[in-house]
Amino acid sequence: MLVIMKDHASSAEVQHVVDLLTEAGAEAHLSRGEVKTIIGVIGDREVIYTLELEGLAGVEQVIRVLKPYKLVGRDFQPQDTVVRVGGTAIGGGAFGVIAGPCSIESEDQMLTTARAARDSGATMLRGGAYKPRSSPYAFQGMGVEGLRLLRAAGDEVGLPVVTEVLDVRDTGTVAEYADILQVGARNMQNFRMLDELGETRKPVLLKRGLSATIEELLSAAEYVIKGGNRDVILCERGIRTFETHTRNTLDLAAVAALKILTHLPVVVDPSHATGRRDLIAPMARASVAAGADGLMIEVHPDPERARCDGPQSLTPTDFDALMRDIAPRVALEGKSLGESS
Amino acid sequence: MLVIMKDHASSAEVQHVVDLLTEAGAEAHLSRGEVKTIIGVIGDREVIYTLELEGLAGVEQVIRVLKPYKLVGRDFQPQDTVVRVGGTAIGGGAFGVIAGPCSIESEDQMLTTARAARDSGATMLRGGAYKPRSSPYAFQGMGVEGLRLLRAAGDEVGLPVVTEVLDVRDTGTVAEYADILQVGARNMQNFRMLDELGETRKPVLLKRGLSATIEELLSAAEYVIKGGNRDVILCERGIRTFETHTRNTLDLAAVAALKILTHLPVVVDPSHATGRRDLIAPMARASVAAGADGLMIEVHPDPERARCDGPQSLTPTDFDALMRDIAPRVALEGKSLGESS
Amino acid sequence: MLVIMKDHASSAEVQHVVDLLTEAGAEAHLSRGEVKTIIGVIGDREVIYTLELEGLAGVEQVIRVLKPYKLVGRDFQPQDTVVRVGGTAIGGGAFGVIAGPCSIESEDQMLTTARAARDSGATMLRGGAYKPRSSPYAFQGMGVEGLRLLRAAGDEVGLPVVTEVLDVRDTGTVAEYADILQVGARNMQNFRMLDELGETRKPVLLKRGLSATIEELLSAAEYVIKGGNRDVILCERGIRTFETHTRNTLDLAAVAALKILTHLPVVVDPSHATGRRDLIAPMARASVAAGADGLMIEVHPDPERARCDGPQSLTPTDFDALMRDIAPRVALEGKSLGESS
Amino acid sequence: MLVIMKDHASSAEVQHVVDLLTEAGAEAHLSRGEVKTIIGVIGDREVIYTLELEGLAGVEQVIRVLKPYKLVGRDFQPQDTVVRVGGTAIGGGAFGVIAGPCSIESEDQMLTTARAARDSGATMLRGGAYKPRSSPYAFQGMGVEGLRLLRAAGDEVGLPVVTEVLDVRDTGTVAEYADILQVGARNMQNFRMLDELGETRKPVLLKRGLSATIEELLSAAEYVIKGGNRDVILCERGIRTFETHTRNTLDLAAVAALKILTHLPVVVDPSHATGRRDLIAPMARASVAAGADGLMIEVHPDPERARCDGPQSLTPTDFDALMRDIAPRVALEGKSLGESS
Repeated sequence: MLVIMKDHASSAEVQHVVDLLTEAGAEAHLSRGEVKTIIGVIGDREVIYTLELEGLAGVEQVIRVLKPYKLVGRDFQPQDTVVRVGGTAIGGGAFGVIAGPCSIESEDQMLTTARAARDSGATMLRGGAYKPRSSPYAFQGMGVEGLRLLRAAGDEVGLPVVTEVLDVRDTGTVAEYADILQVGARNMQNFRMLDELGETRKPVLLKRGLSATIEELLSAAEYVIKGGNRDVILCERGIRTFETHTRNTLDLAAVAALKILTHLPVVVDPSHATGRRDLIAPMARASVAAGADGLMIEVHPDPERARCDGPQSLTPTDFDALMRDIAPRVALEGKSLGESS
Repeated sequence: MLVIMKDHASSAEVQHVVDLLTEAGAEAHLSRGEVKTIIGVIGDREVIYTLELEGLAGVEQVIRVLKPYKLVGRDFQPQDTVVRVGGTAIGGGAFGVIAGPCSIESEDQMLTTARAARDSGATMLRGGAYKPRSSPYAFQGMGVEGLRLLRAAGDEVGLPVVTEVLDVRDTGTVAEYADILQVGARNMQNFRMLDELGETRKPVLLKRGLSATIEELLSAAEYVIKGGNRDVILCERGIRTFETHTRNTLDLAAVAALKILTHLPVVVDPSHATGRRDLIAPMARASVAAGADGLMIEVHPDPERARCDGPQSLTPTDFDALMRDIAPRVALEGKSLGESS
Repeated sequence: MLVIMKDHASSAEVQHVVDLLTEAGAEAHLSRGEVKTIIGVIGDREVIYTLELEGLAGVEQVIRVLKPYKLVGRDFQPQDTVVRVGGTAIGGGAFGVIAGPCSIESEDQMLTTARAARDSGATMLRGGAYKPRSSPYAFQGMGVEGLRLLRAAGDEVGLPVVTEVLDVRDTGTVAEYADILQVGARNMQNFRMLDELGETRKPVLLKRGLSATIEELLSAAEYVIKGGNRDVILCERGIRTFETHTRNTLDLAAVAALKILTHLPVVVDPSHATGRRDLIAPMARASVAAGADGLMIEVHPDPERARCDGPQSLTPTDFDALMRDIAPRVALEGKSLGESS
Repeated sequence: MLVIMKDHASSAEVQHVVDLLTEAGAEAHLSRGEVKTIIGVIGDREVIYTLELEGLAGVEQVIRVLKPYKLVGRDFQPQDTVVRVGGTAIGGGAFGVIAGPCSIESEDQMLTTARAARDSGATMLRGGAYKPRSSPYAFQGMGVEGLRLLRAAGDEVGLPVVTEVLDVRDTGTVAEYADILQVGARNMQNFRMLDELGETRKPVLLKRGLSATIEELLSAAEYVIKGGNRDVILCERGIRTFETHTRNTLDLAAVAALKILTHLPVVVDPSHATGRRDLIAPMARASVAAGADGLMIEVHPDPERARCDGPQSLTPTDFDALMRDIAPRVALEGKSLGESS
């Protein structure tokens, strides 16, 4: 950490900052220029992160040089994390495709979707049993019955299943049915849920919050790993900006940046990012090219009658075309569908 | 709801939309212009909100005329909601000032702050026992012991206490100690927590999410009221934008807009909104003038040693000056500190 | 400037940065910690601002400690700039109210508005002769004929007039008719126009760009002052965010922040910021309380038939009520309408 | 246009809106539901765009169904526009790569870059003679001498040249030297410059503004085409959001959306969008996959000593690697470098 003092900071002000630092257990190194004094601070990440010196008399700016995360960084682990589940993998050359409906609606809907997804080459099945909805008047999901249908459909077609934990109290129940536990965008900074997931032994799919920075996404993942669970998959699903043509703004540069910063696999959800069926295929292609380790695609046998996200859901036929389109592109990046090299 | 068809939408496409609407239980009214056909949809809010027609063949745009909320609106209840707790009130002419530290740190810290807050005219006491922190390495709060200290300090000085429910599982415990239950910005769309709070009999202070629209804030409040709890206080605390000089961007026009749209009281938290001690007083003044029903201010006896939010905390002396500054301004708006007219 | 090297930066990488700095005429001061090496850079603002060291081998982060502006800062000139024009002033205790229509439409419209504005206490008259419109099919303004009508109306009622320079080529013409030259939000970073205005002897009203930071606004003002024209008035008029309920998001904390950072007067345009008639009065009140030196308000004798911005224009009656509302608030801040203390 | 009246709008209020519409020359069609009255408005785009009915008594919402542009849309011209210059093309299957330094600095720098660019397969050469810089203390470009050097370098290697018109007064001069006239992001809504460019016979490269919506970008292009110049190339270069890890947020979904909405070619500038050398290659790959018609890449023989944008400039060697990487991807999309099919 660097503390940059104001131009006219007095010696007493500088000394006061140094005293506070020493008192907190950190080391202070003074560097006095003609105009400015800069204080370099050395100490444990834990200590440094308890220090908030902005606003002290004479202090102009405080710069944190240490990142707020450690375990998720390439400095800590240079090689790619490969998350394995069932016979499939994501990360380290394994490209995953997670397909399925926004919400689980019936046995028939899940089975139809699951068979189509598997036949077209999806490596995992998704479906929501608990739905976060802005309006209390919108469909809220089937709950445990939905989990049961998802599990059954996954078993039937031989695909691992991914579903969202909406309420921290459901973690155990969801973990009974699902292979991968999803944290939705609105829960990315639900820190007690992250703690809880750090203690499960199931992989976690962590979606980026609507207004979360890359650093905050990595810090959220750090919570899970610090808790003991190293199988975290990050998911870029668009951020909220002023543009309204698309539901959110897909931030593909974040995918490329994350691949540099962290060893964790990164998947992209073009369905939620764009909210428009006609933009899903081009954004899926772009995601592969940007270096993503996988895709999450909403598929519904009858999007017009979907109880959730119909406008951004692909039909099985569209999804099949997408998979054929994606296949050579995944190969071009030196990756294989569901298999780590 | 209005469905605007594309210029060249065929009769079959139009009919298909009409059929889907009828099937779902809504009424469709066709209006054919020379260029465009527009379908007006009439039905229950619950039905309308299950319909997602964007992306259907021939559909250009879907416009929702019905708001996604009802109970929070002025149409439903024209007169101001007054939230009463202890001997004090917020809303309907009663101006509330909630003061206290970001995090509860010790008995001495809480008592000192509580006395100073009361002596300067605060109407409620705040303090965090469970802290949401971006980094897992930052101080996470004292937990139940903190709740106990907050309650004791409030009782000592005769002020009701407000504190955040960070984890839905703690709702009951927090409700044992606190008079008002706060939902933090990161939990504004934690819908199961909102459901839970709808079933308690304690008032709820609902903070706007970092990237939540005014409509989403109102929809979140609708969850609580729909659950049976009508005592909801809304809190504007800044939204996330590109500007980095301030921690967030305080949206005071949202306060004025909310006062038109809803009967619920609206308070402002200039401490979190700006993140800078030197901007708190001017923004507190502006909040009063914008029509806010109250303020939430971070006060700490020793901000330099605060374990959280020191840079945006006022000292008791600063807070006292702020209260003297605010008093005539509250009166100018025809409101009284803690008393409804 | 500080250059923070990566954890494992080699001596050669560090030396390379030092060499580049020396070559450019700056001084480099090394500070080697156990983990990190930090290079402090000292030199002229002009030299420092030509240096872009991000992306060099071994460089992690570059921090600019020197602000990109100087002449606009309180360090350079502690006391408030007072901009005087005609018999009125803005800044240093003088509160200005600039009123008038979005666009000049006719002699009658301008005269009616001018008389009403003066009678209600406005200190300056505004009106647009050249209108920036997103669509080429919208009304683009009356041009020189509009300037003539504005000047005549101002002379008739004895108020100085403010109008926008949309095209740098019109600067001379506009300066013949207007007392204050306005730079619109879309031109805030039209640097050649800023240069040109730096050479005129008329005050400049510089509006903040839709996505401009506080620092960029100040840097834009620096262009004008560096050119030799010290009479610059800054105008906060809302920034673009995700919120769509209001046309823009009024950033009143920026007003308070600017008052600390710069000696230049700061006015607020609540009409453009909100785009809604019903939010103008509360935001005008809040602006006064936030420390603004003035207001810019759209007034039209018949808003329903206005060719531009009708929805956010006040009638003369509304404007009169606003002025009565504002007057005691301006006094409460220790300021006087149009008069510097 | 649709005017949605409030629930309790009176007959007089409805009639008043109808009268205003009729007076303006538009047709009003009433549709009275049980709760709401909706007024459909039919008329010329030019008439409709002069109507601003928001804020009228009884009006709840005004929805513009007509887009603010026409000539740029696929409805007006379904087939792709191909912009041809020198022996090369962009659009309609022709993929263009525009390479060169941020700013022109010397004859040697331009010639070295030009030769490297051509040898690696670039189809056009870029270089800035007039630079828009936030700070007046930063390098502002070489001016006409720079234009001369750019032209000479382009002629030497046989590539057409692209450069920015920063000041509308320079349009003629720049057009003497350049083959394509670039409008920078800050000038996207400099409407008089767009008018001026509409009258030249040189193609225009129009960059998206930092906070411009897709619709505003298309409306800006409409200005140029309406003026008589149909050769417009759009350029996505990142928008401003809350994320600070990258300089801007590259919006690739906008590229895919633009390809659906307009017949104009769309290129991507990953250099400005990311501001980081290490993200340029992945974002260039993703741009090709998203459907872009070309790329704009900053190349400098010695980025460390570049007077502008060094951190985001590629060396000739990096650029050569990028071109080899891109080539098979362009082919995979069914496009050819510089040649229209």
